[in-house]
Amino acid sequence: MTIDSFATPTCILGLGLIGGSLMRDLAAAGAPVYGWNRSAATANAAAAEGFDASTDLAAVLRRAQEDRALLVIGVPMFAVGGLLDQIAELAPDCGITDVVSVKRAILDEVEARGMGDRYVGAHPMAGSEESGWEATRTGLYDGAAWVVCFDRAAEARRDGAEVPRQWTKTFRDVAALGALVGSEVIPATADDHDRAVARISHMPHLLSYALAVVGDDGGPLTLSLAAGSFRDGTRVAGAEPDMVMSWCENNVAPVVDALDEVIELLTAARAELRERGTAATLADAGFRAHGRYRARAGSRKVDGGAKLSLRPVIRVSPGTGDWVGDLVQAEGLGGRIDIF
Amino acid sequence: MTIDSFATPTCILGLGLIGGSLMRDLAAAGAPVYGWNRSAATANAAAAEGFDASTDLAAVLRRAQEDRALLVIGVPMFAVGGLLDQIAELAPDCGITDVVSVKRAILDEVEARGMGDRYVGAHPMAGSEESGWEATRTGLYDGAAWVVCFDRAAEARRDGAEVPRQWTKTFRDVAALGALVGSEVIPATADDHDRAVARISHMPHLLSYALAVVGDDGGPLTLSLAAGSFRDGTRVAGAEPDMVMSWCENNVAPVVDALDEVIELLTAARAELRERGTAATLADAGFRAHGRYRARAGSRKVDGGAKLSLRPVIRVSPGTGDWVGDLVQAEGLGGRIDIF
Repeated sequence: MTIDSFATPTCILGLGLIGGSLMRDLAAAGAPVYGWNRSAATANAAAAEGFDASTDLAAVLRRAQEDRALLVIGVPMFAVGGLLDQIAELAPDCGITDVVSVKRAILDEVEARGMGDRYVGAHPMAGSEESGWEATRTGLYDGAAWVVCFDRAAEARRDGAEVPRQWTKTFRDVAALGALVGSEVIPATADDHDRAVARISHMPHLLSYALAVVGDDGGPLTLSLAAGSFRDGTRVAGAEPDMVMSWCENNVAPVVDALDEVIELLTAARAELRERGTAATLADAGFRAHGRYRARAGSRKVDGGAKLSLRPVIRVSPGTGDWVGDLVQAEGLGGRIDIF
Repeated sequence: MTIDSFATPTCILGLGLIGGSLMRDLAAAGAPVYGWNRSAATANAAAAEGFDASTDLAAVLRRAQEDRALLVIGVPMFAVGGLLDQIAELAPDCGITDVVSVKRAILDEVEARGMGDRYVGAHPMAGSEESGWEATRTGLYDGAAWVVCFDRAAEARRDGAEVPRQWTKTFRDVAALGALVGSEVIPATADDHDRAVARISHMPHLLSYALAVVGDDGGPLTLSLAAGSFRDGTRVAGAEPDMVMSWCENNVAPVVDALDEVIELLTAARAELRERGTAATLADAGFRAHGRYRARAGSRKVDGGAKLSLRPVIRVSPGTGDWVGDLVQAEGLGGRIDIF
C-alpha cells in the first residue's frame, strides 16, 4: 500500500487510544489525516505534537465534506447517535466507518438514519487496558485483525440486487485504511462479529474481573503469592469498567450465551472435582482448544524476523463477479482479504 | 547472601523446570549443588552443560547424607512418597524441602513417615506454561515469592514446646536458599498456602482452560479475531493438564471453594445482564480488586532500575524469643522475612 493508492483523506472523530493511534499511523505513513475530539485537553495534546486536531466539530465535518474524506467514528458508544446526526447534516457525501467495538448496535443507529449505503463498520482488534490520548502509539495496529463488516453487500446479494457504488467505494477505502496501518483485513457480518468478540474479548474481561475478586477475597497472603498466571489472568481487569460495560451492554445476548457456556464448564469441573477428585475433562479440552488457537490465529515470526500470517488469504476484487460470495467464504474461514 | 553464609550443599531431586532452574541459579552463584533425575535424557542434558547430575538415586542420596546436604524434592506429586522412602533409608540426617506446589499433601506424606522434624516445605511462585530441562533458565526465581512453611514450629508454639533444633536449622537453610536465588521469602502454613494458591494459581489455570474452550467453540472467525485479552487470558491453558491436575487433585476443597465463588460471581453477572442490561457490579468489583492487587503484590522498578518490594518485611531470628510469633505475623501481612 503506497500513499498514492490512498487518495481519500481520513477524518477521525474521537482521538482516544484507538482513534488517536490511528492518526499517528496515518501521519507517520504520510497519508492525509485530521481529526476532532470533544475535549480540548486531548485536541490540544494532539495539536502540540503537530497533529491536525480540532474541537470544532462543525468545521471539521464541513472540511471532510469538502474533500470527501472517509469519516472514522471513534467515540464511546453512547455518543455515536448524536455524531451521526451531525454527519447527516454537515457531511452528507462522506463514506463512514467506525472503530467502536460492537457492530450491530452501530449498524442499527446508522440504518435508523438511512445512512447504510455509505457505512462500512470496522473493528481493529487491538488496544490495551489503558485509554486516552496519552496511551496512543504508532504501530498499535501492526499485525492486528481489522474487521470490516459487509452486511449491506450481503443484503444486496441475498436480494439479487446491486451493491450501491458508494458502499463499494467506502468498503475499498476502509479495507485500504486497515492495510495501510499494517493490519490484516477480515470480513464479517455485524452479528457474527459480535458473537465472536463476546467470546474472545468480552469474556476474557469478565473472567479477569471475577479472578481479581477471588484473589482479593483471599486476603493479604493470597495476593502476596500471586505470580505470572494471576498477573496475566487479571491484566485486563485494569480496563475501565465503563468501557467494558459499553461493549457488554450493547452485546447482551452473545455475552449471556458465552457466559452460560463458561458457567456450565466450571460447574461440570466442580462436580468432577467433588465426585472424582479431578477436573481432567476441562483441563484436557482447554489444552486441546488452546493448541488449535495457537495453530491458526494471528501471525508468527519466521527466521529473519519476517511475519508469517497464519490466516488464509482470499483475493477479492470489489464490484467484480461474485465478490460478495468471496467475502462470505473468507468470513467462514476467519480469513483475511487482499483487495485488488 | 554470600557463598560463605551458604555452607550447606544443595541436592536437587528432580531437574525439571523448577528443580533444574534452581540448579542453574545455585551453580551460577558458586554454591555447591548436585542433583538426580529419573530420566537419563534430562540428567545427560544437564551433565552436558557441566552440571553435576546423575540418574543413580542411591549414590546421590548417600553422597547427600555424607555431606549433610539440604535435599530439595522437585518430582511430580505422585512420585514424592517413594522418594521419601528412599530418603528415610539412605539420607536419614539430611534436612528436606520440596518445590512441588501444594503443601498439605506433601506434609501428610512426610508426617506419615515421621520425618516432620527435618522437613520444611517450600514453594517458589515462579514457572511458566513450559516444562522440562529445556525450559529451565537462570534467574527464574529473581523477585519471586518463595513460600516457606512453618507448620512444625507453629505446632510447637501452640503446645508450648521447643521447636526441634534440626527443624530450625533446616528452616534457616531453606530460607537462605530462597534468598540466594533472589526470591522474597514468605512464611505460611501448609493449609493457608494451599488456600491461597487455589485462588491465585489453580483458578487462573482452570479459567484459562474454560476460556480456551469457549473461544474454540466459536469457530474459525472467532479464533481469528482473538487479540491480547484472549491471548493473555488463555496463556496458561498451554500448561500440561497432568501437571495442573496434580495440583488440583491434591487441593480439592480449596479449589472447589474458589470455583464456587467464581461461579457465583459469573451467575450474578449473567442475571444482571439479562435483567438490567449490564454487568457493572462485577466489573466495578473486579476493577477495584485489581487495583488493590497492583498496589500490594510483588515489586516495582524504581528510577535507576532498582527493584522496590511492595511487601512488608519482618526481621526474624530463628530460635530467638517469640520468633514463631513473628512468622505468624508476617504470614498475616503476606510479608517477607529477613533472617538474621
